[in-house]
Amino acid sequence: METTASALHHCKFEVPEIIFGRGVLSQVGSCARRLGGKKVFLVSDEGLFSAGWVDQAMRSLLEAHLSFVYYDQVSPNPRDFEVEDGAREYIRHGADVIVGLGGGSAMDAAKGIATLVANGGRIRDYEGSDKIHRPLPPLVLCPTTCGTGSDVSQFAIINDSERRCKLTIMSRCVAPDISLTDPDTLETLPEEYICTTATDALSHALEAFFSVASTTLTDVNAVRALRLISRSFVKAVHEHRPEDLENLARASLHAGMAFSNSLLGIVHALAHPIGGLYDANHGSVNAVLLPEVIRYDLPVVTEKLPELAYGLGYAFPDDEKGAAEMVQETIEKLLDAAGAPRSLRSLGVAREDLPSLAQNALKDICIITSPRQADEKDLLSILERAY
Amino acid sequence: METTASALHHCKFEVPEIIFGRGVLSQVGSCARRLGGKKVFLVSDEGLFSAGWVDQAMRSLLEAHLSFVYYDQVSPNPRDFEVEDGAREYIRHGADVIVGLGGGSAMDAAKGIATLVANGGRIRDYEGSDKIHRPLPPLVLCPTTCGTGSDVSQFAIINDSERRCKLTIMSRCVAPDISLTDPDTLETLPEEYICTTATDALSHALEAFFSVASTTLTDVNAVRALRLISRSFVKAVHEHRPEDLENLARASLHAGMAFSNSLLGIVHALAHPIGGLYDANHGSVNAVLLPEVIRYDLPVVTEKLPELAYGLGYAFPDDEKGAAEMVQETIEKLLDAAGAPRSLRSLGVAREDLPSLAQNALKDICIITSPRQADEKDLLSILERAY
Repeated sequence: METTASALHHCKFEVPEIIFGRGVLSQVGSCARRLGGKKVFLVSDEGLFSAGWVDQAMRSLLEAHLSFVYYDQVSPNPRDFEVEDGAREYIRHGADVIVGLGGGSAMDAAKGIATLVANGGRIRDYEGSDKIHRPLPPLVLCPTTCGTGSDVSQFAIINDSERRCKLTIMSRCVAPDISLTDPDTLETLPEEYICTTATDALSHALEAFFSVASTTLTDVNAVRALRLISRSFVKAVHEHRPEDLENLARASLHAGMAFSNSLLGIVHALAHPIGGLYDANHGSVNAVLLPEVIRYDLPVVTEKLPELAYGLGYAFPDDEKGAAEMVQETIEKLLDAAGAPRSLRSLGVAREDLPSLAQNALKDICIITSPRQADEKDLLSILERAY
Repeated sequence: METTASALHHCKFEVPEIIFGRGVLSQVGSCARRLGGKKVFLVSDEGLFSAGWVDQAMRSLLEAHLSFVYYDQVSPNPRDFEVEDGAREYIRHGADVIVGLGGGSAMDAAKGIATLVANGGRIRDYEGSDKIHRPLPPLVLCPTTCGTGSDVSQFAIINDSERRCKLTIMSRCVAPDISLTDPDTLETLPEEYICTTATDALSHALEAFFSVASTTLTDVNAVRALRLISRSFVKAVHEHRPEDLENLARASLHAGMAFSNSLLGIVHALAHPIGGLYDANHGSVNAVLLPEVIRYDLPVVTEKLPELAYGLGYAFPDDEKGAAEMVQETIEKLLDAAGAPRSLRSLGVAREDLPSLAQNALKDICIITSPRQADEKDLLSILERAY
């Protein structure tokens, strides 16, 4: 057996059909058509429109003889009302397949819209685990950042604008039918977003690897994501070379396959309430929390550290203590070299909010699979160290 | 980029929903039910019936309030007429979901029956790539050996009894909806079959890793399969410990995910005509061919050898030559220690058939993704060395 943890439980593993490669955005039309679609609801955003990628997607839809409706009323950290408006538009136009093109925001909005058109009600009705009962319309997701993993995951995160918190929806229903990644789209992504979204993928890989629900099926993907990120993160941010960007796109995919099946941990349990309260960039919040959560987790995951150290590009270290130091140091160096933010204060978080953020993190679904059972005091201490 | 090869083409990756763990055979009923089934066509064999596993599956179907028809007219290397009879039985009983429980034979027979009930005709009509046009009934496959990977693959292999050859059917349609592995079922598998089926998984992993269609998505699975096999193969055969058997079941799954998406190479291209002509055990044929094909392939796959050496349990070697020797030696030692057959002669192959076997291998679909383009002379030379 690979680890004691993986021996303790049954393993389930589900990933959508995956298409990956430079130029594959031209296949989005044939994908939507193959899923039985006639009228596509295309969800994207202004940035991708300006960069020309929306136009490319539209051309592919037309070539596949599909009509479409374009919807771009989606903010970063998409709002409940944007998703609810989107669902009304979908129904009004009689669309029958959804394509989400963008980062986590556009893709999660597409998932939310798909949920509502099939199930009705408000998006907050689906918060939590397995609350969706009717199957969604066919869904093709095309990521255009180095993170999120929404294109393969069973999660959707939508901001509740009234309660100022993030709703985490977890259901196999929100995994798309097809995940289509064209790494060429990363070439127009601003440097800042390369850094923050790759940090998100780094968190996904590490949290998935340390999760109590990890298995060999998720571990191989988490470790590959870490190797690709450790090789290409800093170069992708500063030099913008296509091969490094492609490695990050690939890392995002591997990390997504891992965390969608093993779930996450404290970084994301804390990042969700912070993102909900401050509308902060998700990757930036992760970058700040990650080193502190790793430090907190390391004592209970020693058995898996040699494999992780290898993932990060080292030969197998002789002892677990050496591996722990190696892992901690590598993560911090990577984040520093990539220019990631390093304090909650710098993200505008108010110190007096830390206790309530710690309380809310305890209710987040991601806390369940943390390798170390944290109480409110532990979480507050992590937040204070990261402040 | 990971390798030059992976940069050259778009990557597609598809795997069914996977359930893995001791005791999960009790979930087969809920799986069939979840796929909309009311009357199950259960395909298995006498050996599994005697060992009590068919009974366990039946109990699970009854607990899920499903009726079922049991079909066990399946030989090792299943015949075209067995599949065609099965399809008639399926239709006569009005079944609406298929469960295959067994090794490659029972599972491939289940795939063949599913193909015919949805598409009509004879099984040989579907030989080759993408010849199936109508979707199959829901399919749950439960492997009970350490090899085949049929439970996740897009392949089915059926013997053409008139032409005495194996038909290779390749289509995303024959991948099941759910792959369900209960490693407990390996505990009643005879020693000989542990050896031959694990050799099949070993071939799958190596051929998938060397395939020109390999990608990071398939490589991570191939390498993990190799690591698990190198750790547990010999112990599983000789000591029969549950944890080693579970590692082999896991290896079979990883290797299946790899080869289903990257395809195979010369070992399988040669093994198919040999199996068709002699009705020989597929794993035994692979065991004999594998070392010779690896020797033939090594000069053109040097770039990937350090990763493979690591997969086999070594630290990264300093040079590619060292890695090549390491790989070759490890494979041969593993096969010897596990007691695998080591010559075609010992399997009853006649020397005068070698030229026509080489000719037929050139027509096999698996030859396409071989890392080294072999002509008839090369294939004959491999067969002669393995004789």
